[in-house]
Amino acid sequence: MEFIEIRRPDDFHLHVRQGEPMAYWVRASARDFARALIMPNTIPPADSPERVEAYRAAILAAVREDPETAGFTPLMAFKIMPGMGAERVAGLKAAGCLAGKYYPAGATTNSSDGLSSPAAAREALLAMEELGLPLSIHAELPEYFVLDREKAFLPTIERLSRDYPKLRIVIEHLSCAESLEFLRSMPERVCATVTVHHLLYTMDETMGEGLNPHFFCKPCLKTPRDRQALQDAVLSGNPRIFFGSDSAPHALSKKEGPFSLGGPYAPGGVFSAPAALPLLAAFFEEGGMLSRLENFTSAFGAAFYGLPRNSGRLRLVKRDSRVPEEIAGALPMLAGRQLPFDVERKEGA
Amino acid sequence: MEFIEIRRPDDFHLHVRQGEPMAYWVRASARDFARALIMPNTIPPADSPERVEAYRAAILAAVREDPETAGFTPLMAFKIMPGMGAERVAGLKAAGCLAGKYYPAGATTNSSDGLSSPAAAREALLAMEELGLPLSIHAELPEYFVLDREKAFLPTIERLSRDYPKLRIVIEHLSCAESLEFLRSMPERVCATVTVHHLLYTMDETMGEGLNPHFFCKPCLKTPRDRQALQDAVLSGNPRIFFGSDSAPHALSKKEGPFSLGGPYAPGGVFSAPAALPLLAAFFEEGGMLSRLENFTSAFGAAFYGLPRNSGRLRLVKRDSRVPEEIAGALPMLAGRQLPFDVERKEGA
Repeated sequence: MEFIEIRRPDDFHLHVRQGEPMAYWVRASARDFARALIMPNTIPPADSPERVEAYRAAILAAVREDPETAGFTPLMAFKIMPGMGAERVAGLKAAGCLAGKYYPAGATTNSSDGLSSPAAAREALLAMEELGLPLSIHAELPEYFVLDREKAFLPTIERLSRDYPKLRIVIEHLSCAESLEFLRSMPERVCATVTVHHLLYTMDETMGEGLNPHFFCKPCLKTPRDRQALQDAVLSGNPRIFFGSDSAPHALSKKEGPFSLGGPYAPGGVFSAPAALPLLAAFFEEGGMLSRLENFTSAFGAAFYGLPRNSGRLRLVKRDSRVPEEIAGALPMLAGRQLPFDVERKEGA
Repeated sequence: MEFIEIRRPDDFHLHVRQGEPMAYWVRASARDFARALIMPNTIPPADSPERVEAYRAAILAAVREDPETAGFTPLMAFKIMPGMGAERVAGLKAAGCLAGKYYPAGATTNSSDGLSSPAAAREALLAMEELGLPLSIHAELPEYFVLDREKAFLPTIERLSRDYPKLRIVIEHLSCAESLEFLRSMPERVCATVTVHHLLYTMDETMGEGLNPHFFCKPCLKTPRDRQALQDAVLSGNPRIFFGSDSAPHALSKKEGPFSLGGPYAPGGVFSAPAALPLLAAFFEEGGMLSRLENFTSAFGAAFYGLPRNSGRLRLVKRDSRVPEEIAGALPMLAGRQLPFDVERKEGA
């Protein structure tokens, strides 16, 4: 096997941030991925049609500047705010939003204005159910012990599924064995994304040697047992589990300091997009399941969101490639390291 | 209760490092503690009578410069090196060493020259057993998953206890529930130190919010269940469990960067000594066991090492005190924060 060719992939969970670096950060994804669901935890949040449209326009302007990324399509998600009304949700859908994102208050970057409970978004959730807009969830209760936060959120998802019986739900960046078991107990309209870092790594990367901010994320990397469960589930070809990188660049100074006395210290977020596809190819190859890579990256997610599959194709060539050392002031995961596959866009794709 | 008076305490596990900052770092302990067992993982290691004597002399010179710390006694430990002979061990004992320290290779700061297994130190261990020199152990197998490293080392301790049936053993900075259970199954000559940070905190401090290098240590902070087991054991007044701070300052730049591409990132080590006694007083008070504080800090450890108890006394006064913001370029644990007790040396102590 010298290369594998797959349909151009989607990333159903991506942070590209704002301001000047955004153009470079989104292009780092747009070179490899045909589409990505752009997370709305910006400042201010992407919570109105105007803001979503402005954000999409900025992203489109950025990718169009480079012929290699010009074909990229940003798929937009909005942030569900406390008390958000049905009309607003309808407007967001009309503005092309594909999903609404549920951030528990305080769970992650820019989420202090998030939801204290589903009750805080009752009207929006009813509207989303009615309009067929999927609910994307950062499934953690931040008041719990860091390793238990995702598990602690599962009863909330069960309640959401019961209270909104037609609502389609995505458990984002699913990270622990208990959540996989929970997923199996849920109706088929509940799905999950899995990141490349939760699939391949454990807390050893975060704190096994030095304390590595570039492998610190929320939910945090977990145990070998959790990783094994994720690997088994992804290799099994379960159509309810698809790729979302949660690639999340932060400026180097935020990750590595200097910090003020008492913090805040390095925020969560792994800038994995530049390394994602080569790592996924190596993972599926090692698992003897290369034929299932395409479904994970390019089919199951599109099916969940009711999107056509991408038409272009892309080659993952078995030769060394090198992760960039830095992209617009952020360090990618495995910066400067060798990867066993290289991404090659097929001619005419 | 306005204050509690205790016999002046001992710290049976302390890092004071080398070079210019050492004087300030050791004084931060010597103000509160009458004696401390000084860890030997210096560069070069404290593994010969000459080096141990030079290190002790440097420490004594530092504490004698300040009348508040002049009475401090450094208790010396030597580092057990692969292939160390019986004669060397006898020389180290003659030089006043109180214990030999077992560092598994790669387990922590400056331990790449440590032991790959007890077999690598057979002659030294036999000599220590013969001479009645206790074995102090960093009980982690670094090749295991970070949360399992201490548990994974327990069979090695069992083997050591069996192979050296008179050897007195200290499991240093004991950090997990399984180790406590193991300790109960061991003969009485196996004891343990407990730090204030493992007693009070969990991994939430390291990575629950931002990634906080000042709460990163080896063994790492663990789960609420482990912390509860430690608290129960310490409050129970078990004479085989005594205080060792593992206070371990690192220069701020090592903890907070800037780092080189790909690391190494922040090393383990919590500089807890400046906050230790007020925190311990608050912990025992909250647990309704203030009367047991003195045994933990000032009696059980001395008994294990066959030392007389300290004669001076010290008051822990119930009034706010403030942790220094910085000491010779290192950030103490809880730097700048208020503590509910203040340390006051009794007149004439």
